[in-house]
Amino acid sequence: MKNHEDVKHIKEYGNNPRYLSNIQINQRKVKVTSNLLKALYEASIAVLAVPSAFVSNVLNELPAHAFDNKMIVSAIKGMITGDNMLITEYVAKRFNIPLASLCIIAGPCHSEEIALEKKSYLTIAGTNIDSATHVASLLNCRFVKTTCSTDLHGVEYAAIMKNIIAIACGLARGLNYGDNFQAVLVSNAMNEMKKLLTTLHPDTARNMIASAYLGDLLVTAYSPYSRNRTLGYLVGKGYSVKAAQAEMNMIAEGYYAVACIHELNKKYNIEMPIVKAIYNVLYEKISPAIEIRILENQMI
Amino acid sequence: MKNHEDVKHIKEYGNNPRYLSNIQINQRKVKVTSNLLKALYEASIAVLAVPSAFVSNVLNELPAHAFDNKMIVSAIKGMITGDNMLITEYVAKRFNIPLASLCIIAGPCHSEEIALEKKSYLTIAGTNIDSATHVASLLNCRFVKTTCSTDLHGVEYAAIMKNIIAIACGLARGLNYGDNFQAVLVSNAMNEMKKLLTTLHPDTARNMIASAYLGDLLVTAYSPYSRNRTLGYLVGKGYSVKAAQAEMNMIAEGYYAVACIHELNKKYNIEMPIVKAIYNVLYEKISPAIEIRILENQMI
Repeated sequence: MKNHEDVKHIKEYGNNPRYLSNIQINQRKVKVTSNLLKALYEASIAVLAVPSAFVSNVLNELPAHAFDNKMIVSAIKGMITGDNMLITEYVAKRFNIPLASLCIIAGPCHSEEIALEKKSYLTIAGTNIDSATHVASLLNCRFVKTTCSTDLHGVEYAAIMKNIIAIACGLARGLNYGDNFQAVLVSNAMNEMKKLLTTLHPDTARNMIASAYLGDLLVTAYSPYSRNRTLGYLVGKGYSVKAAQAEMNMIAEGYYAVACIHELNKKYNIEMPIVKAIYNVLYEKISPAIEIRILENQMI
Repeated sequence: MKNHEDVKHIKEYGNNPRYLSNIQINQRKVKVTSNLLKALYEASIAVLAVPSAFVSNVLNELPAHAFDNKMIVSAIKGMITGDNMLITEYVAKRFNIPLASLCIIAGPCHSEEIALEKKSYLTIAGTNIDSATHVASLLNCRFVKTTCSTDLHGVEYAAIMKNIIAIACGLARGLNYGDNFQAVLVSNAMNEMKKLLTTLHPDTARNMIASAYLGDLLVTAYSPYSRNRTLGYLVGKGYSVKAAQAEMNMIAEGYYAVACIHELNKKYNIEMPIVKAIYNVLYEKISPAIEIRILENQMI
């Protein structure tokens, strides 16, 4: 952890003062440190779990061979801003390691419910199925069931898109649209996601209604725990984007993701009206009511 | 309407005493009667909107040629119990009329939100696209947008399955499962729906993530307005099925639908664990907790 005070607090009281503070951390199993290099040196598997906006800064602290002979598992649902690269693409290139050493953890899974030991399902995606299966086996437990997928980049893009879509759902709710509209919005959003995945990483075996794609989106689009949905909701209610972000204790990944996908799409020109609407609201200061009204007519 | 008192009430006060009573009915446009034959005689389009359990009784009152040269639009999301036939199949056979005279109204669309003039989308499905388009044009208005589909039986089965799935979602919620589990449940349910549709009415052009399939399911599975979800929720909380039904003012179509699909599936043997679980809970008195626990291990 960056923050020395937080490390001290956890060591002394056994809980994180900022997030899910009612959860007791088992310090025989979990060692907390602010020394990144030391933590990495002792690990055979490194899980990346910082907000996407800070990833490149954090990784820049590391020497060139930091990840040699390690498995790297990304739990980040976003892209590298500026480069518009997936986390796994970026790490593989930056540290010159094979893509097979990387995998990702995908939902559908809010940490709040995992913390409550509510039955949840994770998808571990990686190009090397043996590595993905190994990581999956370590995460399996009484209340977590894992499945594996080789569609690394497809699942990674789906997880990024879902955060943008959740902002759209929150926006519509904030503007007083109902359940009927949200259902149509999510169906159309799945179609946008499918178009993006098919263009960037075609895979005829991909099943968009599987948990790693549809399920992951549903939990984010419908759950009150969702930060991205909350960001959209506040903006829909009339908060400025800055004010809505200030209201929230955590980072809404969709805010950064929509800029990356928008930028990336300049190359592909995929028709994605929902992505476009959210970009216009968050970055072009166009009124949410106007953007959703335009969307209304594009939905089918 | 069957009930003379209700007819009298509407004529006198301009609202329905039982459902959506705060909605004023425009009696220059809507004529209420308890004389079924007379109503039908004057109409060029007949919309069937009685609960599926009563359809065959109501239709038995009609003479053989009652529907000749009329369009028939089914808004019923269920099957004919005993015969295990779709409403459109049954009406076409019973009155010896071509399937092209029939179409259906599908969601995603709760009447409560239509009544509030919240933007909603309807899919009109029929084998004859011109007829479907005609019906669609009559339903279009400021807050309702319609699309058409030729996948009559596919959309009809999807609308039936969604009610069973909504019961499953309610059951899980009643048993204290969380958003993570529900997202996985819905993804797996979409897969069951796809298998059923592909077996019964193969159609390579069918897009399961479209509003008529996925959207219709979402609004029923996630909305607090959903009767089927409420039935499941109460049973999950420990109500007996009889007691849960008595609590509700309206009929949960999924209760009848699951028996029909279960019966129909004896011929096809499609693996549908969610349908099986709901059938077992509602008809075989097996504990909801046990059935959902079994489902837990079948979900991926």
